[in-house]
Amino acid sequence: MSNATEEYSDLAAQLRIDSIRSTTKAGSGHPTSSMSAADLLAVLLKGFLKYDPANPHAPTNDHLIFSKGHAAPLLYAVYTAAGWITDEEQMTLRQFGSIIEGHPVPLLPYVDVATGSLGQGLPIGVGIAIVGKYVDKLPYKVYVLLGDSEVAEGSIWEAFDKAQYYKLDNLIAILDMNRLGQRGPTDLGWNSAAYAARAQAFGAHTIEIDGHDLDQIVAAYQEAIAADKPVLIIAKTEKGHGYEKIANQPGWHGKALPQDMADEAIAELGGRKNIRVTVQKPDTAEPAAPASTTPLALPKYELGTKAAARKAYGDALVALGAANSDVLVTDAEVSNSTFAEEFGKKYPERFFEMFIAEQQLVATVVGFSVRGKIGFASTFAAFFSRAYDFIRMAAISRANIRLSGSHAGVSIGEDGPSQMALEDLAMMRSVYESTVLYPSDANQTAHLTALMADQKGISYIRTTREALPVIYSPDEKFEVGGSKVVRKSDTDKITVVGAGITLHEALKAADQLAGEGINIRVIDLYSIKPVDKATLHAAAKVTGTIVTVEDHWPEGGVGDAVLEAFTGESNTPRIVKLAVTKMPGSGKPAELLGEAGIDSAHIVSTIKSLIG
Amino acid sequence: MSNATEEYSDLAAQLRIDSIRSTTKAGSGHPTSSMSAADLLAVLLKGFLKYDPANPHAPTNDHLIFSKGHAAPLLYAVYTAAGWITDEEQMTLRQFGSIIEGHPVPLLPYVDVATGSLGQGLPIGVGIAIVGKYVDKLPYKVYVLLGDSEVAEGSIWEAFDKAQYYKLDNLIAILDMNRLGQRGPTDLGWNSAAYAARAQAFGAHTIEIDGHDLDQIVAAYQEAIAADKPVLIIAKTEKGHGYEKIANQPGWHGKALPQDMADEAIAELGGRKNIRVTVQKPDTAEPAAPASTTPLALPKYELGTKAAARKAYGDALVALGAANSDVLVTDAEVSNSTFAEEFGKKYPERFFEMFIAEQQLVATVVGFSVRGKIGFASTFAAFFSRAYDFIRMAAISRANIRLSGSHAGVSIGEDGPSQMALEDLAMMRSVYESTVLYPSDANQTAHLTALMADQKGISYIRTTREALPVIYSPDEKFEVGGSKVVRKSDTDKITVVGAGITLHEALKAADQLAGEGINIRVIDLYSIKPVDKATLHAAAKVTGTIVTVEDHWPEGGVGDAVLEAFTGESNTPRIVKLAVTKMPGSGKPAELLGEAGIDSAHIVSTIKSLIG
Repeated sequence: MSNATEEYSDLAAQLRIDSIRSTTKAGSGHPTSSMSAADLLAVLLKGFLKYDPANPHAPTNDHLIFSKGHAAPLLYAVYTAAGWITDEEQMTLRQFGSIIEGHPVPLLPYVDVATGSLGQGLPIGVGIAIVGKYVDKLPYKVYVLLGDSEVAEGSIWEAFDKAQYYKLDNLIAILDMNRLGQRGPTDLGWNSAAYAARAQAFGAHTIEIDGHDLDQIVAAYQEAIAADKPVLIIAKTEKGHGYEKIANQPGWHGKALPQDMADEAIAELGGRKNIRVTVQKPDTAEPAAPASTTPLALPKYELGTKAAARKAYGDALVALGAANSDVLVTDAEVSNSTFAEEFGKKYPERFFEMFIAEQQLVATVVGFSVRGKIGFASTFAAFFSRAYDFIRMAAISRANIRLSGSHAGVSIGEDGPSQMALEDLAMMRSVYESTVLYPSDANQTAHLTALMADQKGISYIRTTREALPVIYSPDEKFEVGGSKVVRKSDTDKITVVGAGITLHEALKAADQLAGEGINIRVIDLYSIKPVDKATLHAAAKVTGTIVTVEDHWPEGGVGDAVLEAFTGESNTPRIVKLAVTKMPGSGKPAELLGEAGIDSAHIVSTIKSLIG
Repeated sequence: MSNATEEYSDLAAQLRIDSIRSTTKAGSGHPTSSMSAADLLAVLLKGFLKYDPANPHAPTNDHLIFSKGHAAPLLYAVYTAAGWITDEEQMTLRQFGSIIEGHPVPLLPYVDVATGSLGQGLPIGVGIAIVGKYVDKLPYKVYVLLGDSEVAEGSIWEAFDKAQYYKLDNLIAILDMNRLGQRGPTDLGWNSAAYAARAQAFGAHTIEIDGHDLDQIVAAYQEAIAADKPVLIIAKTEKGHGYEKIANQPGWHGKALPQDMADEAIAELGGRKNIRVTVQKPDTAEPAAPASTTPLALPKYELGTKAAARKAYGDALVALGAANSDVLVTDAEVSNSTFAEEFGKKYPERFFEMFIAEQQLVATVVGFSVRGKIGFASTFAAFFSRAYDFIRMAAISRANIRLSGSHAGVSIGEDGPSQMALEDLAMMRSVYESTVLYPSDANQTAHLTALMADQKGISYIRTTREALPVIYSPDEKFEVGGSKVVRKSDTDKITVVGAGITLHEALKAADQLAGEGINIRVIDLYSIKPVDKATLHAAAKVTGTIVTVEDHWPEGGVGDAVLEAFTGESNTPRIVKLAVTKMPGSGKPAELLGEAGIDSAHIVSTIKSLIG
């Protein structure tokens, strides 16, 4: 063994020992899944990774993502060996209040994104690699540690597909092929050739090695860094490697060792060490070019004309792109429907096509967020349901991402229910600290899209397919958490709350009722979350009953947002929900709005029956 | 051209003409995406498909799934040519009230499942093929028409992976490689070899053909039927083939031809035809062996002991499996956590491992439903978010599927937020006609699991990780839409509604308050949807205020289910929600329940502050 190899070997032993120590102390966790990858990480940390821990968000740093998030003990052992966290901190693993959580979260500055739902680290790595190669044009590498079980997730193949398409030679995935999943052997076991064939077919350069042979690992990283393609290193490993009694044995997934076995394992690994590694700094400290910014000039739509919210979204993206070079846009092969193509035509170098792969779509924009970019992702609202787990995890990652879902509700018409988002508001409202916007007008859409650019966390805008009347002047102001009272008198009998297309139905109903001498208040609830409590409470005080109208299932949408505004209050008004309750089919938008009971006629009849 | 070939050619021309006629009449739809696959379908229909239209659900019929659901006009043209629907019916495409919808739905008995969200037909086909090969052991084939754009969806690769694992030689996928997506060229264009390499790496037998050469198509089906592996026929085609002016041209996705172009195209295709094909009947009319049934003997748990709901779920599955041979179970590589492994050990021939591929997990159980089986699918509740689009589509498919999500909420403890379902109730409540159950006790879990077996539509049970006290006798009765009043007196000051683990916290709070002379009513809301209005209304009448306590985000869960019970009512009680409002980390279950403010101490203090 050469000196260098011996140093790697000692470091790897320490990483295994620390993974055992922290999990045994915690009484839970995944030591064996950490031990299998310890050699791979020891060599990466000491030999190849380039990272300035004094500036964890430096644009020139390499990225290291544990897609197999349950190997978190190994990640913390790596940070400890690098001196980025203390041994004391490492040993708080899984304790209440510690940011050394059971799975990595970016409360630790060295963690890019939360992982733990498998198959997400690589897709997010693709987003980070795209920024490096095409936007910031910096030579950083993105290293992603994959578990073999997670390669069964389709999202992994969406990621390899895009890595090939975008020729991401800065992306290096490392497959810890330890053969054992949670409940038993993986599908492909140690069939390294099968993984290699798959990855090659998806355009990757593959390198098959013994994941416990340090010389092979060194050579693999050298080859990977020099490759002109995305790389998959397939490392044959043993789960629990380093402790003979449990190495390569089933039944040891996600189990901490009891103290006596931990002691035995640590002794077998040569006893505790206190190695500290100096990680190489990036070759260049040169930052990415700062964003170029100019004042924002939003598109304007003339009052009384008609325009589709989705078109205004696209126009606003173009304006945002002109105002800030950090604005990046991605779409899932429907940019001519979502109107993201407007941006793509104007700024092709900042537009990234993900084809029909919605998980990768969201992962890409999370990757943009990791690099501090202002990313927008769009597809049909219905198809964000394909990526709900990614959205949920993005919230745990404290990512700042902006999602635009077009073609909401039955009002899309003839295409039928597969294309109609009727649960997207429910889905997006129940994301941690999300912002949910639902404009009814083109000028409003443009303003809200601009607000999203500055918004923290997960923000979502729901856009309508149909062109609808422009009811706000281009100078009208809107805010997250706001609403607009669009009809109001001193004699309002009832309040109707609409958003998007149903606001226009409410306005038609108000006009008709006014003609019959009945005044109603109409509120445009364009901010579904947070919701404008004050305006709703003021209306309730005047009119008592509130009727909510939405192009959405009754659960979790506009009606529930209004209910939320009164939760905990002792004087809850009567709230009557009009929503889609039957499975729609095909038809013209007006027919389907009518069938769902959310058109102006139903609003009128509901109000008449309520006021008696 | 041989006679046979000429007949295919004429039929293909008719399929194209009908796809044009119906979409031009509708004024929207996807004629060009239909025309590319017309030759493939003409040969399949006339030469190979075995189907008895008099009995569309006959177990011996072949299955034909349009995974590219937007080619629905072609599917209806096929049905028309087969005489299964009339031309008049075909021509109601996309009209309001017609079941000839813009994308296929199983309101038509020949349609197995709704498609239109891409990448779902093949995974569901895998489920159907599994039943044919392993359960019913019938020789039917499952034909799936794939679009080339949708092959970018990871779910397609989850499906091929499982097709390989289960050696599904009865699954024949046909890729209509027409090179053009919605907004432009696909990622791989006409690179037939690239598709072939990918599919081969995932274990498929591939056949590359010219998709407009009828002899090649015939030979391909012959080869596919004889193959001992899953098959992918890769057919190079032209979008809009048959009408020179638009064939292989961009800009024609999802556009009906104007009448003059339609007339021109029909003339170019040789004019309208009235071909009717007699589809071959299955070789055997022998039905699958009928399910063997015996009376159900559910597991029993002793009052006062502790048991985990997830364990009771597993035990109940075993009982259901004994009672009915149609019960099939699938799981996503966590069956030792969800306890589906109990069933797997007892009935390995009816247990199907999907590894870590939740989209395929749900698709498989939808496939079981297509074949009339009683399918249950389980994983961590958080990870069903990975498959939300499949669940949404399953509802449009009117599938009967049963989902069990374990490890709900912060009470799972140390693993941290990536593993905690905190939005699953919101997600599942906003599925059309879904049933959402959330037991607090092992006997209750067993009973509810048994009820799910008979339930129509999408049913979901949320199970808790922790072992909790058994509070119901094994003989207690439960029903979908029911609840239990578990504490009640004549002097109840307030009502607390809990479910799952929070019910136990509510009971602890009730005991503590009772010791202080304060009586509260406690309701076990084990049926979250439908919700037991009567019991909630009765409680509200007595106590006024209702406090809801849930291990879930505030949006869309137990609290909103209670609000739903009062929506539209003029006398809404004050409803105070206790829910998880901060992002949790790792910690012990009790610590995390406390931090979230949903433990007994917080219930007590909330009640005291409310009653003043």
